[in-house]
Amino acid sequence: MKDCVTAAVIGLGRIGRTHAEILVSRVGSVRVKYAADAFLNEEMKKWAKELGIKGVTDDPEICLQDPEVDAVYICTSTDTHSEYITRAAKAGKHIFSEKPLDSDLVRLSGALREAEKAGVKFQTGFMRRFDRNHSKAKALIQSGKVGRGQMIRLSCRDTVQSPYEYLKVSGGIFFDMMIHDFDMVRFLTDSEAEEIYAAGGVFTDERLNDIPDVDTAAAFVRMKNGMLAVIDNGRQCWYGHDQRSEIFCTEGTVQVMNEHEDTVVVKKGDGIYAPKPPDFFIERYYEAYVAENQSFVDSILFDRPAAVTAADGVEPIRMAKAAQLSLEQNRPVKLSEITEYRIV
Amino acid sequence: MKDCVTAAVIGLGRIGRTHAEILVSRVGSVRVKYAADAFLNEEMKKWAKELGIKGVTDDPEICLQDPEVDAVYICTSTDTHSEYITRAAKAGKHIFSEKPLDSDLVRLSGALREAEKAGVKFQTGFMRRFDRNHSKAKALIQSGKVGRGQMIRLSCRDTVQSPYEYLKVSGGIFFDMMIHDFDMVRFLTDSEAEEIYAAGGVFTDERLNDIPDVDTAAAFVRMKNGMLAVIDNGRQCWYGHDQRSEIFCTEGTVQVMNEHEDTVVVKKGDGIYAPKPPDFFIERYYEAYVAENQSFVDSILFDRPAAVTAADGVEPIRMAKAAQLSLEQNRPVKLSEITEYRIV
Amino acid sequence: MKDCVTAAVIGLGRIGRTHAEILVSRVGSVRVKYAADAFLNEEMKKWAKELGIKGVTDDPEICLQDPEVDAVYICTSTDTHSEYITRAAKAGKHIFSEKPLDSDLVRLSGALREAEKAGVKFQTGFMRRFDRNHSKAKALIQSGKVGRGQMIRLSCRDTVQSPYEYLKVSGGIFFDMMIHDFDMVRFLTDSEAEEIYAAGGVFTDERLNDIPDVDTAAAFVRMKNGMLAVIDNGRQCWYGHDQRSEIFCTEGTVQVMNEHEDTVVVKKGDGIYAPKPPDFFIERYYEAYVAENQSFVDSILFDRPAAVTAADGVEPIRMAKAAQLSLEQNRPVKLSEITEYRIV
Amino acid sequence: MKDCVTAAVIGLGRIGRTHAEILVSRVGSVRVKYAADAFLNEEMKKWAKELGIKGVTDDPEICLQDPEVDAVYICTSTDTHSEYITRAAKAGKHIFSEKPLDSDLVRLSGALREAEKAGVKFQTGFMRRFDRNHSKAKALIQSGKVGRGQMIRLSCRDTVQSPYEYLKVSGGIFFDMMIHDFDMVRFLTDSEAEEIYAAGGVFTDERLNDIPDVDTAAAFVRMKNGMLAVIDNGRQCWYGHDQRSEIFCTEGTVQVMNEHEDTVVVKKGDGIYAPKPPDFFIERYYEAYVAENQSFVDSILFDRPAAVTAADGVEPIRMAKAAQLSLEQNRPVKLSEITEYRIV
Repeated sequence: MKDCVTAAVIGLGRIGRTHAEILVSRVGSVRVKYAADAFLNEEMKKWAKELGIKGVTDDPEICLQDPEVDAVYICTSTDTHSEYITRAAKAGKHIFSEKPLDSDLVRLSGALREAEKAGVKFQTGFMRRFDRNHSKAKALIQSGKVGRGQMIRLSCRDTVQSPYEYLKVSGGIFFDMMIHDFDMVRFLTDSEAEEIYAAGGVFTDERLNDIPDVDTAAAFVRMKNGMLAVIDNGRQCWYGHDQRSEIFCTEGTVQVMNEHEDTVVVKKGDGIYAPKPPDFFIERYYEAYVAENQSFVDSILFDRPAAVTAADGVEPIRMAKAAQLSLEQNRPVKLSEITEYRIV
Repeated sequence: MKDCVTAAVIGLGRIGRTHAEILVSRVGSVRVKYAADAFLNEEMKKWAKELGIKGVTDDPEICLQDPEVDAVYICTSTDTHSEYITRAAKAGKHIFSEKPLDSDLVRLSGALREAEKAGVKFQTGFMRRFDRNHSKAKALIQSGKVGRGQMIRLSCRDTVQSPYEYLKVSGGIFFDMMIHDFDMVRFLTDSEAEEIYAAGGVFTDERLNDIPDVDTAAAFVRMKNGMLAVIDNGRQCWYGHDQRSEIFCTEGTVQVMNEHEDTVVVKKGDGIYAPKPPDFFIERYYEAYVAENQSFVDSILFDRPAAVTAADGVEPIRMAKAAQLSLEQNRPVKLSEITEYRIV
Repeated sequence: MKDCVTAAVIGLGRIGRTHAEILVSRVGSVRVKYAADAFLNEEMKKWAKELGIKGVTDDPEICLQDPEVDAVYICTSTDTHSEYITRAAKAGKHIFSEKPLDSDLVRLSGALREAEKAGVKFQTGFMRRFDRNHSKAKALIQSGKVGRGQMIRLSCRDTVQSPYEYLKVSGGIFFDMMIHDFDMVRFLTDSEAEEIYAAGGVFTDERLNDIPDVDTAAAFVRMKNGMLAVIDNGRQCWYGHDQRSEIFCTEGTVQVMNEHEDTVVVKKGDGIYAPKPPDFFIERYYEAYVAENQSFVDSILFDRPAAVTAADGVEPIRMAKAAQLSLEQNRPVKLSEITEYRIV
Repeated sequence: MKDCVTAAVIGLGRIGRTHAEILVSRVGSVRVKYAADAFLNEEMKKWAKELGIKGVTDDPEICLQDPEVDAVYICTSTDTHSEYITRAAKAGKHIFSEKPLDSDLVRLSGALREAEKAGVKFQTGFMRRFDRNHSKAKALIQSGKVGRGQMIRLSCRDTVQSPYEYLKVSGGIFFDMMIHDFDMVRFLTDSEAEEIYAAGGVFTDERLNDIPDVDTAAAFVRMKNGMLAVIDNGRQCWYGHDQRSEIFCTEGTVQVMNEHEDTVVVKKGDGIYAPKPPDFFIERYYEAYVAENQSFVDSILFDRPAAVTAADGVEPIRMAKAAQLSLEQNRPVKLSEITEYRIV
């Protein structure tokens, strides 16, 4: 057994840097040999140097060709994930890819087949599964202590809307944001989606109509095991990243409340101020990202299956497609209608 | 102006007695002259005597013919509401009718026309509008302090399921239970429903399949002003009457949390026990019932419009019908499809 | 057995009116025949008329001489309580007296002996014992479920300071405010105070130095059963009547949190606003006052001992005297040093 | 300026290991060259090896003589702190010493004079100052937004009592446990203690009478700026490390609530289970330890004053001595009576 995994991070945007920083400072038995970005700039170089990463490059191929590299983190823009997955697979590297894997399921299917053929580990970046609260919730449900699941309610609202330029290429709220909730629904119910009905509207940014996209959305998911899920998302809520989950079961309800920046309550004549949730999802889920990365590194070290599989990456995309179709046609859409590619 | 309203309560089940007790002990400027029930029994007689109501009768007509009686409370079974509304209107009595007014909209339309013709006050028993929390929430929304409404989430779960015999004649979860949420949606959005999609399932009591009914239901409501509402209901949750509301607006979110039996937290080695919500909705909304009754009495004394109108009683029934149709046909149903009767 | 108690309320200030209103509207089997105040004014007359009390008088003796009157509520200023207790006892009336009974223990001892000699019911107005939270806390402790008591923490802060003119004659913070906490300590520990150490200071109103009084005070109480109690009081906290209690026991801790005006949480960019406690103690303890009055009326109807005895009224006064002495001399003071009068 | 601090940790008990682990994995610009313990055992060796610390020794002098070592962490038993402070100072090493510095103030005074003479950085290990909640509370108070401080309430209870053998040499509850609260009182009030009155008792472990020590204690502190502080401590509360603080000011109250293990609420028929605080103070304050260590390392790198000074280490010991004396003599004790050594 190796005693250390050598990793390369490809794509040095916000999420790529977060992974690199966590790998360097919080995860054991891993070193980051490369930080690569095809559009490498001075700021990225400075960041990498401060972090102590020696191999800074604008040519990801260098990472892929280095035999010392065991694993690559694909943190580039969504439409390039499949290409990098394919190249990394062919180079025999273990792969961690950020979500959503790809909005083009046909293209993605080719890439994932390469990864399977290469026999490398493949993990999809759904960090919420590693959140202490959601993993506790899942354990509670699986324990049988709250009976059988009936309904799930998931809520997610960003503090402020992402930049319009980003949203234009994000693939829409179902691919960009609700995809985490679709993942959670599968995770918490241990079942697959059967049918989805979605609704949405533009309330805060009229420009979204031109994309077209919505800033407020809700979806109903009917699972194969009979459970119902109700999801709502909002692009902007001002008071912090608001993400709560609730699982209503036959013998009890499990509620996952928000995490908060602190535990300080201030009581004054003009009101009682309670703690706020953190503003950004990366801050909110920082420890989940740490656990996610440790899990991926350990799956390589101990040759264990990755905790979040390729199928776990594909199904939420199919759900997002079904939701998008439902929104467009205003009718419930069966998952079986999404035929491009399915693993499960 | 009269200085006291004379009332008769018709129908001495749980809710009729609650109204009578509240009128006797908590509402000013009203006296209860009659407590009537067509199926009067010894227990009802005993209860009325203890409460100090002199006129106990199994013939509601006696109340209607007594010129001293100003107002009647119709608390009989749902399928008799229209008949009593008609008879009370013809007798010139002000009318408070429990919800749902009637599941037969054609029959109801005739009754409400009589009430309108008679020029009497008519109030529908949607007490949740008088709850201190929901009325504060509405005031906040109307104040503009949280911006424009985007989405509403309503959750309601009974502690334990009502008796099967009761559910058999209840008209189903949308008429019996979610009708309060349909009312809340209209109340909190100041808009009318455009379209509804509903889903549901049987999780805890297989017998419901024979009615047929469901024990767990969810509904999406698209309002004419563009707002979305997501409602979920459950017949049984064990830990108290769980009713929470949330209104997500462009500049803030208003959350109505549960009321609790007390404020005592017990911390022990085996867990930290937080206060529970009250078990029964009557207990939960007791003060709302008081305010509802005071409002009705005051509307008569001061000749003001009733706070919850006939239209407020009819529209949620139409929404329940749309939800029922949606559940049966698994498609979004427009309110315009419910054509039997509409006021708005 | 009588089926109704006839009561007279003497002293029509805020607390006297509260009792009268509760007796009229919320308590069963009682009627208020008289509302008396030696300094009767037009406003009082108007108030009594609206409440439907016929016997309005500036001569309390009229109530005491009326053989129909079973019970009197003594809600006059503290320094007249003993006199009215004596007169009521001699007239054979059951007595409910507001707290503190009297700051002059010698005078009080004479009055209470008269009440005892007369064999009438005597109840001291410590309403906090009837609060749903504190009575639940006591039941929990007595149940043994949290083990044996170790320490009690009590906190009480008024929203805004009472008027200076009132404070000048209030007897000081220990007599006027902390007396409720002294009562709670006895109630929750089922033990008597052995020794008290008190501290305090003037932080918000320099004029209090002239009385002299303090606006912020803390006291340590060592109980005969070994338990410790820590009490803090403040005259002004701005954000609502803040009263919390905590009982730390060998197998768990019982916390009594604040009651709140509502359950509405408002989340905005500038903060998350939680519900406030009610501003006034009467609002906070309204239901406790109702229960207290029902208990007193029932003790008469069913000839049961009063729930809060004369001794329960006297001991907190002795504790207040010990605390006052401790503050003046900056030393722990034994209750045995307070020799004027003791019942326990 | 150096770009990395070389540290040695002396004393490899629970707290020493925690510091070492944090320095290795969470603090930037520092390396741990030595882990030393005069009573080095196999388990410590294994632990150090896994952590990647090369210099494992049973002779602390080796660390002190190595010119590469910039700073030492003194995590040995309390009675040896002064000796190691002296030796480290003479060797010219920067010093981080765990609390309490020493119960023998005369001995400590000599050691601290050496440190001062040597001109090295000296930081006392009061990590609670670096807790996100307490530092926010302090900032709020200093901002003036809540007015002027009146009273502080601090509560601290361990989940389970430390082993008896440990308690026998701990110096008693005031030195071992309440010392953190004494530190907090100074930190939050920006003032010094004038007088202390303390009380306590044995409730859960009779053996403590033989030490003698108490398992439950309370203390009143009167500060030079007039503020009052009320502290309570308990050795055992079962439901997690319960540490709450409250600062009551003239224009508002700041409450520091507990941190919790997660945000999961479970609602069942037998109760509503809220999240628990972590069981151990190290878990509770882990991020505070990280910040404390980063602060110490940065003070060396950037030649800034240490954030928690020698005086900050000495004064709480004097307060503990005053509290101990107060408990023994049952009287308020002035800090001026503790004459062995004072810095402030």
